[in-house]
Amino acid sequence: MTERVLIKNLAALEDGPVTVSGWVDTVRDQKKVQFVVLRDESGAVQLVNPRTTDADGVVVADEPATTISGLSQGSFITITGELKHDERVKLGGIEVKLASIEVLSHAIPETPIAPDSSLDKRMDWRFLDLRNPKQNLIFRIQTTFEHALRTYWIDNDFIELHTPKLMASASESRAELFEVEYFDTKAYLAQSPQFFKQMAQSAGFGKIFEVGPAFRADPSFTSRHATEFTSIDSEISWIDSHEDVMKLHEDLMVAGFTAVKAKHGDEIKALFDVEIAVPTTPFPRIPLAEAKQIVKERGYEVPRDDDDMDPEGERQIAAYVKETYGHEFVFLTDYASSIRPFYHMRHEGDSSLTNSYDLIFNGTEISTGAQREHRVDVLIEQMKDKGMEQEELEFYLDFFRYGAPSHGGFGMGLARVLMLMLHQTSIREVTYLFRGPTRLLP
Amino acid sequence: MTERVLIKNLAALEDGPVTVSGWVDTVRDQKKVQFVVLRDESGAVQLVNPRTTDADGVVVADEPATTISGLSQGSFITITGELKHDERVKLGGIEVKLASIEVLSHAIPETPIAPDSSLDKRMDWRFLDLRNPKQNLIFRIQTTFEHALRTYWIDNDFIELHTPKLMASASESRAELFEVEYFDTKAYLAQSPQFFKQMAQSAGFGKIFEVGPAFRADPSFTSRHATEFTSIDSEISWIDSHEDVMKLHEDLMVAGFTAVKAKHGDEIKALFDVEIAVPTTPFPRIPLAEAKQIVKERGYEVPRDDDDMDPEGERQIAAYVKETYGHEFVFLTDYASSIRPFYHMRHEGDSSLTNSYDLIFNGTEISTGAQREHRVDVLIEQMKDKGMEQEELEFYLDFFRYGAPSHGGFGMGLARVLMLMLHQTSIREVTYLFRGPTRLLP
Repeated sequence: MTERVLIKNLAALEDGPVTVSGWVDTVRDQKKVQFVVLRDESGAVQLVNPRTTDADGVVVADEPATTISGLSQGSFITITGELKHDERVKLGGIEVKLASIEVLSHAIPETPIAPDSSLDKRMDWRFLDLRNPKQNLIFRIQTTFEHALRTYWIDNDFIELHTPKLMASASESRAELFEVEYFDTKAYLAQSPQFFKQMAQSAGFGKIFEVGPAFRADPSFTSRHATEFTSIDSEISWIDSHEDVMKLHEDLMVAGFTAVKAKHGDEIKALFDVEIAVPTTPFPRIPLAEAKQIVKERGYEVPRDDDDMDPEGERQIAAYVKETYGHEFVFLTDYASSIRPFYHMRHEGDSSLTNSYDLIFNGTEISTGAQREHRVDVLIEQMKDKGMEQEELEFYLDFFRYGAPSHGGFGMGLARVLMLMLHQTSIREVTYLFRGPTRLLP
Repeated sequence: MTERVLIKNLAALEDGPVTVSGWVDTVRDQKKVQFVVLRDESGAVQLVNPRTTDADGVVVADEPATTISGLSQGSFITITGELKHDERVKLGGIEVKLASIEVLSHAIPETPIAPDSSLDKRMDWRFLDLRNPKQNLIFRIQTTFEHALRTYWIDNDFIELHTPKLMASASESRAELFEVEYFDTKAYLAQSPQFFKQMAQSAGFGKIFEVGPAFRADPSFTSRHATEFTSIDSEISWIDSHEDVMKLHEDLMVAGFTAVKAKHGDEIKALFDVEIAVPTTPFPRIPLAEAKQIVKERGYEVPRDDDDMDPEGERQIAAYVKETYGHEFVFLTDYASSIRPFYHMRHEGDSSLTNSYDLIFNGTEISTGAQREHRVDVLIEQMKDKGMEQEELEFYLDFFRYGAPSHGGFGMGLARVLMLMLHQTSIREVTYLFRGPTRLLP
């Protein structure tokens, strides 16, 4: 292993010899002195090389000067030199006087993207785009956020699942389903781990979680949709209602935001100009019917024939919650059965409503949760009610025929959380490699 | 939330009222007293209900007796009762005298599988199979193992990736590739995150990991292969050789095994009769050519024309390592270029060998690792050498044209590790829902 010092750790070292590795950000090749800004995953540092002159004061073509002159942006190098603290150096008050350079790989000098390139162009060259400190920070935030959730789950005895993404039938609806050539038959890509995380409840696992890919053959091009996305799922047994799921959900969000603020709060403020707020619990909860009334009173009539919200309605109710409770999150609850999947449990005594919720964060839906119907006879009724074919889902119904506890859970889009946390306008910005109807590369 | 006590926590409680939830394991409905063994994710406990008799000594059909008589195996119930410690009770020295029962769902009385059912039959009814304490323990071990790895990665500043599983082209070879109908075109399912984890190195991420699904359209039916499996991947920059990757790899295995032994060692001993051994470092390393010589001297000639090992050879070398070093792991190193992918770096000065390794655990290969070729001109040469089409992989070559550090990493099959750790004979036993050429259900 190259015994390099991470650039962020240089400032804490005393003056003396160091080895640093990274890629060339800029080269200023002046007559009497050469400057290189070197970048690694942790930061940037200035390297300096005063040119050698001969007895007549003429610059000599020696090393490392010649190598520096030939360096292109993006080339990966390992250097040794003398670290020197110097307040006059703008970049962190340190510089490294070069002794030697090893070039691991020379980059093509022409860089295909610039800071002002379009998002689409940046996605074409995502590996270069990701060298940007802002983009790098996004994935360190993602790492911290996920680990905080996982640590919460582990501390609370949840079992981690890896459910199959290849299925014999649709997980929720036949629409937006990717079809796979599977030997002599067809398979489908899982749109969510829904059925299989419910299976864990019948299996007596009690509490489970999964973080994995989900696939939707969704031909839309909005800033919030992708054909492949990372879904965060959790499911728990022995709940009384969706209220228990919301309690779990808000505890997880608090764990995630607390960790992100503690580890990256200052960097996020510096690079994104966003102050991370750890939400207080309980999050506000508003039944959907009431939310629509509130939005209407604010002058916005949701232009839908069904009982659902629309994106503008979500923004309006979020604005109301922010004004009224100072909260960035709100659970909209008790959605109509007509717009919820067949497996959502319906209200006892009013089958037109479900024990379900959406979680809205900064004005956009990031998650759907619900108590599930665990009584097989009711479940079959609800399937019929939705006009679904029972035959294809016999394997799923079996999970309940042989006993199941009351249970519920949620699925949450990781990229949406990050997008809204960092005030980004598209999930493309916070997805390592976005997949959409016309994007499969790189 | 039902305020239930987990069964494993009952023994530590004093005698008194408790609520427990779980599923019915057995019912013994005797004349004067009824016994139920109730199971949850943490254990099993005996419930007892002395029948009520009238003045004439005749048993009365009261509650909860009538409900108990109607209980089928697998029904999920919540009970309240009086906990009583009693040494005479074989099942943990405690029992609960029933006061009331709530039946959440009645199971069909006929159980389709028995303890001696075939593996294939058990997979048909996997959710019932998983109610078995052994099967449940496997997934708690998996959870602990993964979390230990992730904690190691997080503590060492790795970035977690979610690379796309939908690709425009093959990741390694055109063989064994699943094809997806993707709007007006075709996509392929990723056989590994290989190209995209290498992309992170060019992106300057430094150190990354991913745990996610990988897909192989492999028509074989061995105990070690699946069409979908969970791949554990890690990749690091600035390495000197594959030795640096092996160091990371063995540290991760130690972290995983240490956590599993600490948390589940006793249960594993009790249920699997396996003593978990935390491996010592460094793991033995044997160049492949030497390993084949050792195996030959033991009387086994690997019946292959290429320079590879075969499964029996792996068992033999593992036996040798166990006898000689008392170690369950061995790195076989320096595989021939002819049997390694084009992106493995070759020896400086001997291009017939690669900077690569396989990790063998208890006689079976669980992982392949290597230093990658980061010099684009050499990489293109090696592609040509393998007779590959450059055109389709231009997007991959770009990762290196614009600069890349030296780097390497490994991919490891999670199920293989668990199978060998627990001395199981098939990855089907340790996969939540196995996928093979003829299995897509449940």
